[in-house]
Amino acid sequence: MTALRIGIAGLGTVGAGVVKLLRAQVHAIAARAGRPLIVTAVSARDRTRERGISLEGLIWHDDPLALAADPNVDVVVELIGGAEGMAKTLAEATLAAGKPLVTANKALLATHGAALARAAEAAGTSIGYEAAVAGGIPVIKALREGLAANRVDRVAGILNGTCNYVLTTMREEGRGFADVLADAQTLGYAEADPSFDIDGVDAAHKLAILASLAFGRRIAFSSLHVEGIRNITPLDITFAQEFGYRIKLLGIAARTEDGISMRVHPAMVPLNTPLANVEGVFNAVSLEGDFSGPVFLQGRGAGEGPTASAVVADLIDVARGVRIPVWGMAATALDPAPALPIAQHEGAYFLRLMVVDQPGVLADVMAILRDHGISLASMAQHGRRPGEAVPIVLVTHETREAAVSGALAQIGALESVLEPPALIRIEPQ
Amino acid sequence: MTALRIGIAGLGTVGAGVVKLLRAQVHAIAARAGRPLIVTAVSARDRTRERGISLEGLIWHDDPLALAADPNVDVVVELIGGAEGMAKTLAEATLAAGKPLVTANKALLATHGAALARAAEAAGTSIGYEAAVAGGIPVIKALREGLAANRVDRVAGILNGTCNYVLTTMREEGRGFADVLADAQTLGYAEADPSFDIDGVDAAHKLAILASLAFGRRIAFSSLHVEGIRNITPLDITFAQEFGYRIKLLGIAARTEDGISMRVHPAMVPLNTPLANVEGVFNAVSLEGDFSGPVFLQGRGAGEGPTASAVVADLIDVARGVRIPVWGMAATALDPAPALPIAQHEGAYFLRLMVVDQPGVLADVMAILRDHGISLASMAQHGRRPGEAVPIVLVTHETREAAVSGALAQIGALESVLEPPALIRIEPQ
Repeated sequence: MTALRIGIAGLGTVGAGVVKLLRAQVHAIAARAGRPLIVTAVSARDRTRERGISLEGLIWHDDPLALAADPNVDVVVELIGGAEGMAKTLAEATLAAGKPLVTANKALLATHGAALARAAEAAGTSIGYEAAVAGGIPVIKALREGLAANRVDRVAGILNGTCNYVLTTMREEGRGFADVLADAQTLGYAEADPSFDIDGVDAAHKLAILASLAFGRRIAFSSLHVEGIRNITPLDITFAQEFGYRIKLLGIAARTEDGISMRVHPAMVPLNTPLANVEGVFNAVSLEGDFSGPVFLQGRGAGEGPTASAVVADLIDVARGVRIPVWGMAATALDPAPALPIAQHEGAYFLRLMVVDQPGVLADVMAILRDHGISLASMAQHGRRPGEAVPIVLVTHETREAAVSGALAQIGALESVLEPPALIRIEPQ
Repeated sequence: MTALRIGIAGLGTVGAGVVKLLRAQVHAIAARAGRPLIVTAVSARDRTRERGISLEGLIWHDDPLALAADPNVDVVVELIGGAEGMAKTLAEATLAAGKPLVTANKALLATHGAALARAAEAAGTSIGYEAAVAGGIPVIKALREGLAANRVDRVAGILNGTCNYVLTTMREEGRGFADVLADAQTLGYAEADPSFDIDGVDAAHKLAILASLAFGRRIAFSSLHVEGIRNITPLDITFAQEFGYRIKLLGIAARTEDGISMRVHPAMVPLNTPLANVEGVFNAVSLEGDFSGPVFLQGRGAGEGPTASAVVADLIDVARGVRIPVWGMAATALDPAPALPIAQHEGAYFLRLMVVDQPGVLADVMAILRDHGISLASMAQHGRRPGEAVPIVLVTHETREAAVSGALAQIGALESVLEPPALIRIEPQ
């Protein structure tokens, strides 16, 4: 059968990995796809950079956009990155040319995924984006196809390996956030500008994609609630353990009575659940289907090999003639409702206060909680240091976020409360 | 678009579940598949049995074979079960009629999967069998499509929920095998004749399917090594914990220097691995791809909902026009080599002896191990009861099964060794 001719835009770690994989597994992949997969054309910023792959025999385009028009290219792999600029222009041109697009670009999809889906449909072609979420874990395929018979009720994932590495190391070595982050940067686990990972933006892009697929919603990145892990302290990690939890940065999308809740924030995860035991740079996704029941997936979320594995899986789908609607159904049929505001979130809360150890403080705090209709499941204060700062931990029963925010504003204003209170949501799962 | 018309053979728990699911999710599934999925015809043994579903408006066939020929049926769902008889005849007739086959029948596929794949290819149609392995976990899709870019090096799974329930309960409640099994039968977690589950046959059917897909091999059920869990004692479970393991019935297929090893047996799994923490009726599969790295999947392995979820996922694939080669590549391209004999297995071993507590016994045992070139990683004897029976546990370094079998035959023949030695393979994973 005729070969599938692949054009790759972007030859960084992942792009070079895709070329390596396609060459290493050339025979097996041809057997599985029913036809050869060959890279015919590439585009990158620097033609001469050493990448560990030979570019001999490949068409070189200085302008990535030329890949969309190149008659020697059947499918374009976009690995440029970024929600705007050339990545977006190339994606649009590829689909406009009626060619399938394969991309690892979560920012692009989270921001322009709805318009790109309409463009793909109009042109009768497809977008493969397995590599955009959770690297080597085939979670897009699991949601878009494997669980397609289910009404999905909940998706919760550890979607950023950098954050999970930092939190794991903080816990294992009892060290502070800034300290561990600096190490992670030295080791190459975190970027020089770590904000994108650490502040939850990367996880939020991925959650927006999963939520759109799981709940059949028009992607709405801007309506997500997003918090990162900068404020997590070793003290919180120690208390978490004591209360039977582990702190993880989760992306959560869940069906509630009021609408779909979509949020990224640090969460207390019960120790006996699979997500709590996902450590280091690993990613994981927990899905709840009404017929399937719970399904849990774990693997490597980033890196050359896992990401290349996902990109090439999409290319094999293209070669096999598999074409699934971008968001699992027609783009026009997607529900445009935005995510539920975080103020409407209902759940249990872990609250940590630093207070002056003196009589009456707890009574003031309890009175405020009572006035906001918040009831406590448990409370802990360790040690006694009369007149000095001590931590107090409060775990609430299920309550509404608006009530908790209101109470914390008042509690934080008490003279005997020395720092802004820490709030970490508890996730059952 | 025109509806996909479905004929179902077998209306037991799963068949009724499929009908319920298709009715409960009729609109969502039509949106996802791009066309309605409707059941038009059914066949079962008893037309009047109460199943919680209405059969009104459905064509009833007393002979399931009529579904293959019925012009009102586009795809046949075979839920009769069994490797031979009507299930096989119907599968063959369906494919011969050029209709896609969807089945949950692991025995049929493990036994006749190679011939059925050739028949499907000859007719230009497909076989969906997501429901045959691990119920609600989309592991067939993960292997056949999601990880299609990888050379898979290892598949290890907890593939039988009955066995995992029995082992979990034995550990948690400190009870014996027969006792827990009897309870499981009362609770409906085990069949009246439990042999199929307990002796590893069901897990072996599933492993044969996974191994065929993962390694591109012609399915060869008869060459698998299969052991069940009848001989596992509370003592072994206690020792496992002490040595940092949990005992699980695993199906394992792995690439070795000598060939592909495929085996089902109780195994010592390190406590800090995901598989060790899969408890009760849950199933799980751990996959190792050369580019993806480790991928771990967990979920419900049986029951009406999870199995119906998998059957309908396959039906949605059919409706979407997705057609993947049955074993991931052309049936003629599959490697026909059988599994490696268990005597060639290399690994570490947990050995438990019941010996008379008297001087010299250990010296005899050690001499035999030495003569077979087996070196020990650790040893434990608890308590002292001079002249009476005490258990001794030996954990070996990596060695070859043939050496261990030879040594155990001699050790078992020692006068001071009171029971046949217990052997449990240790799996790194």
